[in-house]
Amino acid sequence: MTIKLFDLAGAEPDLRFSPYCWRTKLALAHKGLAAETIPWRFVEKDAIAMSGQGRVPVLLDGDKIISDSWTIAEYLEDTYPARPSLFGSAQARRVTRFINSWADIVVNAALARLLLTDIYAHLHEKDRVYFRESREKRFGMPLEQVSADRDTRIAGFHESLEPARTVLTKQPYLAGDRPLYADYILFGCFMWARIISSFRVLTSDDPIHSWRERMLDAMGGLARNAPGNID
Amino acid sequence: MTIKLFDLAGAEPDLRFSPYCWRTKLALAHKGLAAETIPWRFVEKDAIAMSGQGRVPVLLDGDKIISDSWTIAEYLEDTYPARPSLFGSAQARRVTRFINSWADIVVNAALARLLLTDIYAHLHEKDRVYFRESREKRFGMPLEQVSADRDTRIAGFHESLEPARTVLTKQPYLAGDRPLYADYILFGCFMWARIISSFRVLTSDDPIHSWRERMLDAMGGLARNAPGNID
Repeated sequence: MTIKLFDLAGAEPDLRFSPYCWRTKLALAHKGLAAETIPWRFVEKDAIAMSGQGRVPVLLDGDKIISDSWTIAEYLEDTYPARPSLFGSAQARRVTRFINSWADIVVNAALARLLLTDIYAHLHEKDRVYFRESREKRFGMPLEQVSADRDTRIAGFHESLEPARTVLTKQPYLAGDRPLYADYILFGCFMWARIISSFRVLTSDDPIHSWRERMLDAMGGLARNAPGNID
Repeated sequence: MTIKLFDLAGAEPDLRFSPYCWRTKLALAHKGLAAETIPWRFVEKDAIAMSGQGRVPVLLDGDKIISDSWTIAEYLEDTYPARPSLFGSAQARRVTRFINSWADIVVNAALARLLLTDIYAHLHEKDRVYFRESREKRFGMPLEQVSADRDTRIAGFHESLEPARTVLTKQPYLAGDRPLYADYILFGCFMWARIISSFRVLTSDDPIHSWRERMLDAMGGLARNAPGNID
Protein backbone atom coordinates (compact mmCIF):
# COMPACT_ATOMS: atom_id res chain seq x y z
CA MET A 1 0.00 0.00 0.00
CA THR A 2 1.45 3.34 -1.01
CA ILE A 3 2.56 5.73 1.72
CA LYS A 4 0.57 8.97 1.62
CA LEU A 5 1.73 12.35 2.86
CA PHE A 6 -0.42 15.41 3.47
CA ASP A 7 1.81 18.20 2.21
CA LEU A 8 1.11 21.93 2.60
CA ALA A 9 0.40 23.54 -0.79
CA GLY A 10 -0.03 27.08 -2.03
CA ALA A 11 -2.43 28.57 -4.55
CA GLU A 12 -0.77 26.37 -7.15
CA PRO A 13 -1.21 22.81 -5.91
CA ASP A 14 2.37 21.87 -6.83
CA LEU A 15 3.85 24.72 -4.77
CA ARG A 16 4.96 22.78 -1.68
CA PHE A 17 6.74 25.00 0.78
CA SER A 18 6.39 23.67 4.33
CA PRO A 19 9.86 23.23 5.90
CA TYR A 20 8.49 20.41 8.04
CA CYS A 21 6.97 18.60 5.06
CA TRP A 22 10.29 18.98 3.24
CA ARG A 23 12.05 17.20 6.08
CA THR A 24 9.62 14.30 5.67
CA LYS A 25 9.85 14.20 1.87
CA LEU A 26 13.65 14.10 2.05
CA ALA A 27 13.52 11.42 4.74
CA LEU A 28 11.21 9.30 2.59
CA ALA A 29 13.54 9.70 -0.41
CA HIS A 30 16.56 8.85 1.74
CA LYS A 31 14.82 5.64 2.78
CA GLY A 32 13.92 4.94 -0.84
CA LEU A 33 10.23 4.93 0.03
CA ALA A 34 7.78 6.07 -2.64
CA ALA A 35 4.98 8.26 -1.35
CA GLU A 36 1.98 9.95 -2.82
CA THR A 37 1.72 13.53 -1.62
CA ILE A 38 -1.70 15.05 -1.07
CA PRO A 39 -1.85 18.86 -1.39
CA TRP A 40 -3.31 20.29 1.80
CA ARG A 41 -4.22 23.82 2.89
CA PHE A 42 -4.24 25.31 6.38
CA VAL A 43 -8.03 25.40 6.69
CA GLU A 44 -8.48 21.76 5.71
CA LYS A 45 -8.38 20.59 9.33
CA ASP A 46 -11.05 17.96 8.67
CA ALA A 47 -8.86 16.13 6.15
CA ILE A 48 -6.24 15.39 8.83
CA ALA A 49 -8.53 15.17 11.86
CA MET A 50 -7.78 11.43 12.06
CA SER A 51 -4.24 12.39 13.15
CA GLY A 52 -5.63 13.98 16.30
CA GLN A 53 -4.10 17.39 15.55
CA GLY A 54 -4.21 20.09 12.90
CA ARG A 55 -0.80 20.40 11.24
CA VAL A 56 1.12 18.75 8.43
CA PRO A 57 3.10 16.68 7.71
CA VAL A 58 0.73 13.81 8.33
CA LEU A 59 1.91 10.44 7.08
CA LEU A 60 -0.37 7.50 6.31
CA ASP A 61 1.43 4.16 6.12
CA GLY A 62 -1.02 1.27 5.93
CA ASP A 63 -3.15 1.67 9.04
CA LYS A 64 -0.61 3.93 10.76
CA ILE A 65 -1.25 7.67 11.03
CA ILE A 66 1.74 9.73 12.14
CA SER A 67 2.10 13.50 12.53
CA ASP A 68 4.99 15.81 13.45
CA SER A 69 8.11 15.69 11.29
CA TRP A 70 10.41 14.46 14.08
CA THR A 71 7.98 11.70 15.08
CA ILE A 72 7.66 10.70 11.43
CA ALA A 73 11.46 10.51 11.05
CA GLU A 74 11.65 8.26 14.11
CA TYR A 75 8.78 6.16 12.78
CA LEU A 76 10.46 5.69 9.40
CA GLU A 77 13.76 4.79 11.06
CA ASP A 78 12.14 2.22 13.35
CA THR A 79 9.74 0.79 10.77
CA TYR A 80 12.25 0.47 7.93
CA PRO A 81 15.53 -0.41 9.68
CA ALA A 82 16.90 -2.33 6.70
CA ARG A 83 16.76 0.77 4.52
CA PRO A 84 19.45 3.50 4.69
CA SER A 85 19.53 4.97 8.18
CA LEU A 86 18.35 8.55 8.66
CA PHE A 87 20.60 9.10 11.67
CA GLY A 88 23.52 6.70 11.29
CA SER A 89 23.13 5.23 14.77
CA ALA A 90 20.72 5.16 17.70
CA GLN A 91 23.05 7.49 19.60
CA ALA A 92 23.28 9.93 16.70
CA ARG A 93 19.48 10.08 16.58
CA ARG A 94 19.38 11.42 20.13
CA VAL A 95 21.94 14.13 19.41
CA THR A 96 20.23 15.04 16.12
CA ARG A 97 17.22 16.07 18.20
CA PHE A 98 19.20 19.12 19.28
CA ILE A 99 19.65 20.23 15.66
CA ASN A 100 15.91 19.74 15.14
CA SER A 101 15.15 21.90 18.14
CA TRP A 102 17.63 24.61 17.09
CA ALA A 103 16.33 24.71 13.50
CA ASP A 104 12.73 25.09 14.71
CA ILE A 105 13.39 27.70 17.36
CA VAL A 106 16.13 29.77 15.77
CA VAL A 107 16.00 29.28 12.00
CA ASN A 108 12.33 28.74 11.26
CA ALA A 109 11.22 31.44 13.66
CA ALA A 110 13.55 33.94 11.96
CA LEU A 111 12.55 32.84 8.46
CA ALA A 112 8.87 33.22 9.33
CA ARG A 113 9.46 36.90 10.05
CA LEU A 114 11.55 37.40 6.92
CA LEU A 115 9.17 35.64 4.56
CA LEU A 116 5.71 36.23 5.98
CA THR A 117 4.37 38.48 3.24
CA ASP A 118 5.77 36.17 0.56
CA ILE A 119 4.08 33.18 2.18
CA TYR A 120 0.81 35.07 2.27
CA ALA A 121 1.13 36.03 -1.39
CA HIS A 122 1.44 32.39 -2.43
CA LEU A 123 -1.38 30.97 -0.32
CA HIS A 124 -4.56 29.51 -1.70
CA GLU A 125 -7.42 31.98 -1.51
CA LYS A 126 -9.19 29.92 1.13
CA ASP A 127 -6.20 30.06 3.50
CA ARG A 128 -5.79 33.83 3.49
CA VAL A 129 -8.20 34.90 6.21
CA TYR A 130 -7.01 32.13 8.55
CA PHE A 131 -3.35 32.89 7.89
CA ARG A 132 -3.67 36.64 8.29
CA GLU A 133 -5.64 36.40 11.52
CA SER A 134 -3.45 33.74 13.15
CA ARG A 135 -0.15 35.40 12.17
CA GLU A 136 -1.24 38.94 13.05
CA LYS A 137 -2.21 37.60 16.45
CA ARG A 138 1.13 35.78 16.81
CA PHE A 139 3.28 38.73 15.78
CA GLY A 140 1.06 41.43 17.25
CA MET A 141 1.12 43.59 14.13
CA PRO A 142 -0.31 43.76 10.59
CA LEU A 143 1.08 41.04 8.32
CA GLU A 144 2.74 43.55 6.01
CA GLN A 145 4.74 45.07 8.87
CA VAL A 146 6.29 41.81 10.01
CA SER A 147 8.62 41.43 7.04
CA ALA A 148 8.98 45.15 6.33
CA ASP A 149 12.37 45.47 8.04
CA ARG A 150 13.88 42.34 6.55
CA ASP A 151 16.68 44.15 4.75
CA THR A 152 18.09 45.16 8.12
CA ARG A 153 17.02 42.01 9.93
CA ILE A 154 18.86 39.70 7.51
CA ALA A 155 22.24 40.43 9.16
CA GLY A 156 20.98 39.01 12.45
CA PHE A 157 19.66 35.97 10.60
CA HIS A 158 23.07 35.35 9.04
CA GLU A 159 24.68 35.67 12.48
CA SER A 160 22.22 33.22 14.01
CA LEU A 161 23.38 30.59 11.51
CA GLU A 162 26.97 30.71 12.77
CA PRO A 163 26.81 27.35 14.63
CA ALA A 164 25.91 25.60 11.36
CA ARG A 165 28.43 27.67 9.40
CA THR A 166 31.26 26.68 11.71
CA VAL A 167 30.41 22.99 11.38
CA LEU A 168 30.15 23.26 7.60
CA THR A 169 33.65 24.72 7.35
CA LYS A 170 34.91 21.55 9.12
CA GLN A 171 32.84 18.88 7.38
CA PRO A 172 30.76 18.90 4.15
CA TYR A 173 27.47 18.02 5.84
CA LEU A 174 26.01 18.53 9.31
CA ALA A 175 25.99 14.72 9.59
CA GLY A 176 29.63 14.44 8.45
CA ASP A 177 30.74 13.30 5.02
CA ARG A 178 27.28 12.51 3.69
CA PRO A 179 23.84 14.03 4.24
CA LEU A 180 21.54 12.49 6.83
CA TYR A 181 18.42 13.69 8.62
CA ALA A 182 20.47 16.34 10.47
CA ASP A 183 20.97 17.97 7.07
CA TYR A 184 17.37 17.50 5.93
CA ILE A 185 16.20 19.35 9.04
CA LEU A 186 18.07 22.55 8.23
CA PHE A 187 17.74 22.18 4.48
CA GLY A 188 13.96 22.02 4.84
CA CYS A 189 14.11 25.55 6.25
CA PHE A 190 15.91 26.78 3.15
CA MET A 191 13.50 24.98 0.82
CA TRP A 192 10.72 26.98 2.45
CA ALA A 193 12.56 30.19 1.61
CA ARG A 194 13.48 29.04 -1.88
CA ILE A 195 10.00 28.04 -2.94
CA ILE A 196 8.02 30.87 -1.44
CA SER A 197 10.24 33.91 -1.90
CA SER A 198 12.76 35.63 -4.12
CA PHE A 199 14.33 37.30 -1.07
CA ARG A 200 17.91 36.08 -0.80
CA VAL A 201 18.41 34.57 2.63
CA LEU A 202 22.03 33.48 2.01
CA THR A 203 24.92 35.21 0.30
CA SER A 204 26.80 33.21 -2.31
CA ASP A 205 30.08 33.33 -0.34
CA ASP A 206 28.51 31.65 2.70
CA PRO A 207 29.64 28.05 3.38
CA ILE A 208 25.97 27.36 4.12
CA HIS A 209 25.17 28.46 0.57
CA SER A 210 27.64 25.91 -0.84
CA TRP A 211 26.14 23.23 1.39
CA ARG A 212 22.66 24.20 0.22
CA GLU A 213 23.80 23.79 -3.38
CA ARG A 214 25.02 20.27 -2.58
CA MET A 215 21.74 19.51 -0.87
CA LEU A 216 19.76 20.78 -3.87
CA ASP A 217 21.64 18.27 -6.00
CA ALA A 218 21.28 15.37 -3.57
CA MET A 219 19.17 12.36 -4.45
CA GLY A 220 19.01 13.19 -8.15
CA GLY A 221 18.15 16.84 -7.68
CA LEU A 222 14.92 16.08 -5.84
CA ALA A 223 14.88 19.49 -4.19
CA ARG A 224 16.34 21.52 -7.07
CA ASN A 225 13.66 20.24 -9.40
CA ALA A 226 10.77 21.15 -7.10
CA PRO A 227 8.45 23.80 -8.57
CA GLY A 228 8.73 27.27 -7.06
CA ASN A 229 10.71 30.46 -6.98
CA ILE A 230 14.47 30.30 -7.05
CA ASP A 231 16.55 32.63 -4.92
CA MET B 1 52.97 7.84 32.23
CA THR B 2 50.36 10.10 33.78
CA ILE B 3 48.30 12.33 31.52
CA LYS B 4 48.85 16.01 32.28
CA LEU B 5 46.40 18.82 31.65
CA PHE B 6 47.14 22.53 31.69
CA ASP B 7 44.05 23.95 33.37
CA LEU B 8 43.19 27.63 33.70
CA ALA B 9 43.37 28.75 37.34
CA GLY B 10 42.41 31.89 39.24
CA ALA B 11 44.12 33.68 42.09
CA GLU B 12 43.56 30.57 44.16
CA PRO B 13 45.31 27.76 42.30
CA ASP B 14 42.43 25.36 42.90
CA LEU B 15 39.86 27.71 41.34
CA ARG B 16 39.50 26.09 37.91
CA PHE B 17 36.89 27.85 35.83
CA SER B 18 37.60 27.45 32.10
CA PRO B 19 34.54 25.98 30.35
CA TYR B 20 36.82 24.37 27.78
CA CYS B 21 39.04 22.79 30.43
CA TRP B 22 35.91 21.47 32.15
CA ARG B 23 34.89 19.70 28.97
CA THR B 24 38.27 17.98 28.94
CA LYS B 25 38.25 17.11 32.65
CA LEU B 26 34.80 15.55 32.31
CA ALA B 27 35.88 13.67 29.18
CA LEU B 28 38.92 12.27 31.00
CA ALA B 29 36.74 11.18 33.92
CA HIS B 30 34.21 9.61 31.53
CA LYS B 31 37.04 7.61 29.99
CA GLY B 32 38.28 6.66 33.45
CA LEU B 33 41.65 8.26 32.72
CA ALA B 34 43.53 9.76 35.64
CA ALA B 35 45.18 13.08 34.89
CA GLU B 36 47.35 15.50 36.77
CA THR B 37 46.12 19.06 36.26
CA ILE B 38 48.64 21.88 36.15
CA PRO B 39 47.30 25.29 37.16
CA TRP B 40 47.93 27.76 34.35
CA ARG B 41 47.34 31.50 33.97
CA PHE B 42 46.62 33.50 30.80
CA VAL B 43 50.08 35.12 30.66
CA GLU B 44 51.96 31.84 30.97
CA LYS B 45 52.20 31.41 27.22
CA ASP B 46 55.71 29.97 27.46
CA ALA B 47 54.50 26.99 29.51
CA ILE B 48 52.28 25.81 26.65
CA ALA B 49 54.36 27.07 23.74
CA MET B 50 55.16 23.45 22.82
CA SER B 51 51.49 23.11 21.78
CA GLY B 52 52.01 25.70 19.04
CA GLN B 53 49.28 28.00 20.35
CA GLY B 54 48.41 29.99 23.45
CA ARG B 55 45.22 28.61 25.00
CA VAL B 56 44.22 25.87 27.36
CA PRO B 57 43.23 23.08 27.63
CA VAL B 58 46.54 21.55 26.59
CA LEU B 59 46.83 17.81 27.15
CA LEU B 60 50.11 15.91 27.45
CA ASP B 61 49.79 12.16 26.96
CA GLY B 62 53.19 10.48 26.70
CA ASP B 63 54.88 12.26 23.81
CA LYS B 64 51.59 13.62 22.44
CA ILE B 65 50.67 17.29 22.90
CA ILE B 66 47.07 18.19 22.05
CA SER B 67 45.25 21.49 22.35
CA ASP B 68 41.63 22.61 21.76
CA SER B 69 38.91 20.85 23.74
CA TRP B 70 37.18 19.37 20.69
CA THR B 71 40.46 18.03 19.29
CA ILE B 72 41.29 16.58 22.70
CA ALA B 73 37.89 14.83 22.89
CA GLU B 74 38.48 13.30 19.46
CA TYR B 75 42.00 12.30 20.48
CA LEU B 76 40.77 10.58 23.65
CA GLU B 77 38.02 8.77 21.74
CA ASP B 78 40.45 7.53 19.07
CA THR B 79 43.31 6.70 21.44
CA TYR B 80 41.24 4.91 24.08
CA PRO B 81 38.51 3.16 22.07
CA ALA B 82 38.13 0.32 24.59
CA ARG B 83 37.13 2.75 27.32
CA PRO B 84 33.57 4.20 27.54
CA SER B 85 32.77 6.14 24.38
CA LEU B 86 32.42 9.92 24.61
CA PHE B 87 30.03 10.08 21.68
CA GLY B 88 28.31 6.70 21.50
CA SER B 89 29.10 6.17 17.82
CA ALA B 90 31.23 7.60 15.03
CA GLN B 91 28.11 9.14 13.51
CA ALA B 92 27.03 10.70 16.79
CA ARG B 93 30.48 12.31 17.06
CA ARG B 94 29.90 14.20 13.83
CA VAL B 95 26.52 15.50 14.94
CA THR B 96 27.84 16.39 18.41
CA ARG B 97 30.13 18.88 16.66
CA PHE B 98 27.07 21.08 16.11
CA ILE B 99 26.35 21.22 19.84
CA ASN B 100 30.00 22.14 20.40
CA SER B 101 29.73 24.95 17.89
CA TRP B 102 26.44 26.22 19.32
CA ALA B 103 27.73 26.15 22.91
CA ASP B 104 30.82 28.13 21.93
CA ILE B 105 29.09 30.71 19.78
CA VAL B 106 25.82 31.21 21.62
CA VAL B 107 26.28 30.13 25.23
CA ASN B 108 29.90 30.95 26.01
CA ALA B 109 29.75 34.27 24.19
CA ALA B 110 26.70 35.28 26.22
CA LEU B 111 28.18 34.05 29.50
CA ALA B 112 31.38 35.98 28.86
CA ARG B 113 29.36 39.20 28.81
CA LEU B 114 27.35 38.26 31.90
CA LEU B 115 30.33 37.17 33.99
CA LEU B 116 33.21 39.32 32.82
CA THR B 117 33.67 41.37 35.98
CA ASP B 118 33.40 38.25 38.14
CA ILE B 119 36.06 36.52 36.08
CA TYR B 120 38.31 39.54 36.45
CA ALA B 121 37.77 39.59 40.21
CA HIS B 122 38.98 36.01 40.56
CA LEU B 123 42.03 36.23 38.32
CA HIS B 124 45.58 35.90 39.54
CA GLU B 125 47.23 39.28 39.92
CA LYS B 126 49.58 38.62 37.02
CA ASP B 127 46.67 38.01 34.61
CA ARG B 128 44.81 41.24 35.28
CA VAL B 129 46.48 43.64 32.90
CA TYR B 130 46.41 41.12 30.05
CA PHE B 131 42.78 40.24 30.70
CA ARG B 132 41.56 43.82 31.01
CA GLU B 133 43.36 44.97 27.86
CA SER B 134 42.34 42.02 25.69
CA ARG B 135 38.68 42.04 26.83
CA GLU B 136 38.25 45.81 26.66
CA LYS B 137 39.54 45.62 23.10
CA ARG B 138 37.17 42.73 22.28
CA PHE B 139 34.08 44.36 23.76
CA GLY B 140 35.00 47.94 22.90
CA MET B 141 34.21 49.28 26.37
CA PRO B 142 35.59 49.33 29.92
CA LEU B 143 35.48 45.93 31.61
CA GLU B 144 33.05 47.10 34.28
CA GLN B 145 30.51 48.21 31.67
CA VAL B 146 30.33 44.85 29.88
CA SER B 147 28.45 43.05 32.64
CA ALA B 148 26.68 46.12 34.02
CA ASP B 149 23.38 45.39 32.25
CA ARG B 150 23.29 41.71 33.09
CA ASP B 151 20.08 41.89 35.09
CA THR B 152 18.26 42.88 31.92
CA ARG B 153 20.41 40.79 29.59
CA ILE B 154 19.73 37.54 31.46
CA ALA B 155 16.27 37.18 29.86
CA GLY B 156 17.86 37.00 26.42
CA PHE B 157 20.33 34.44 27.71
CA HIS B 158 17.51 32.25 28.99
CA GLU B 159 15.77 32.55 25.64
CA SER B 160 18.94 31.59 23.75
CA LEU B 161 19.01 28.30 25.67
CA GLU B 162 15.61 27.23 24.33
CA PRO B 163 17.01 24.61 21.89
CA ALA B 164 18.66 22.79 24.80
CA ARG B 165 15.62 23.29 27.03
CA THR B 166 13.30 21.72 24.46
CA VAL B 167 15.55 18.67 24.15
CA LEU B 168 15.83 18.32 27.92
CA THR B 169 12.05 18.20 28.29
CA LYS B 170 12.07 15.18 25.95
CA GLN B 171 15.09 13.26 27.23
CA PRO B 172 17.11 13.52 30.48
CA TYR B 173 20.42 14.33 28.78
CA LEU B 174 21.42 16.00 25.52
CA ALA B 175 22.93 12.65 24.55
CA GLY B 176 19.75 10.74 25.48
CA ASP B 177 19.31 8.63 28.59
CA ARG B 178 22.86 9.06 29.90
CA PRO B 179 25.40 11.87 29.76
CA LEU B 180 28.01 11.87 27.01
CA TYR B 181 30.33 14.51 25.60
CA ALA B 182 27.33 16.43 24.19
CA ASP B 183 26.37 17.08 27.80
CA TYR B 184 29.91 17.86 28.97
CA ILE B 185 30.13 20.56 26.31
CA LEU B 186 27.18 22.56 27.63
CA PHE B 187 27.77 21.66 31.25
CA GLY B 188 31.29 23.08 31.02
CA CYS B 189 29.70 26.45 30.26
CA PHE B 190 27.70 26.27 33.48
CA MET B 191 30.70 25.17 35.53
CA TRP B 192 32.40 28.36 34.39
CA ALA B 193 29.48 30.39 35.76
CA ARG B 194 29.21 28.35 38.93
CA ILE B 195 32.84 28.62 39.92
CA ILE B 196 33.50 32.22 39.05
CA SER B 197 30.29 34.00 39.96
CA SER B 198 27.38 34.14 42.37
CA PHE B 199 25.17 35.59 39.62
CA ARG B 200 22.34 33.14 39.00
CA VAL B 201 22.35 32.22 35.33
CA LEU B 202 19.49 29.68 35.60
CA THR B 203 16.22 29.78 37.49
CA SER B 204 15.39 26.76 39.61
CA ASP B 205 12.25 25.94 37.59
CA ASP B 206 14.23 25.62 34.34
CA PRO B 207 14.59 22.06 32.97
CA ILE B 208 18.19 23.01 32.26
CA HIS B 209 18.63 23.66 35.98
CA SER B 210 17.43 20.13 36.80
CA TRP B 211 19.77 18.72 34.16
CA ARG B 212 22.63 20.75 35.63
CA GLU B 213 21.89 19.27 39.04
CA ARG B 214 22.12 15.77 37.56
CA MET B 215 25.36 16.69 35.87
CA LEU B 216 26.80 18.07 39.12
CA ASP B 217 26.16 14.67 40.69
CA ALA B 218 27.52 12.65 37.77
CA MET B 219 30.68 10.61 38.17
CA GLY B 220 30.64 10.72 41.94
CA GLY B 221 29.98 14.45 42.20
CA LEU B 222 33.18 15.37 40.37
CA ALA B 223 31.79 18.77 39.39
CA ARG B 224 29.78 19.49 42.53
CA ASN B 225 32.84 18.98 44.68
CA ALA B 226 35.03 21.34 42.69
CA PRO B 227 36.16 24.37 44.72
CA GLY B 228 34.49 27.66 43.84
CA ASN B 229 31.41 29.79 44.32
CA ILE B 230 28.02 28.15 44.19
CA ASP B 231 25.13 29.83 42.45
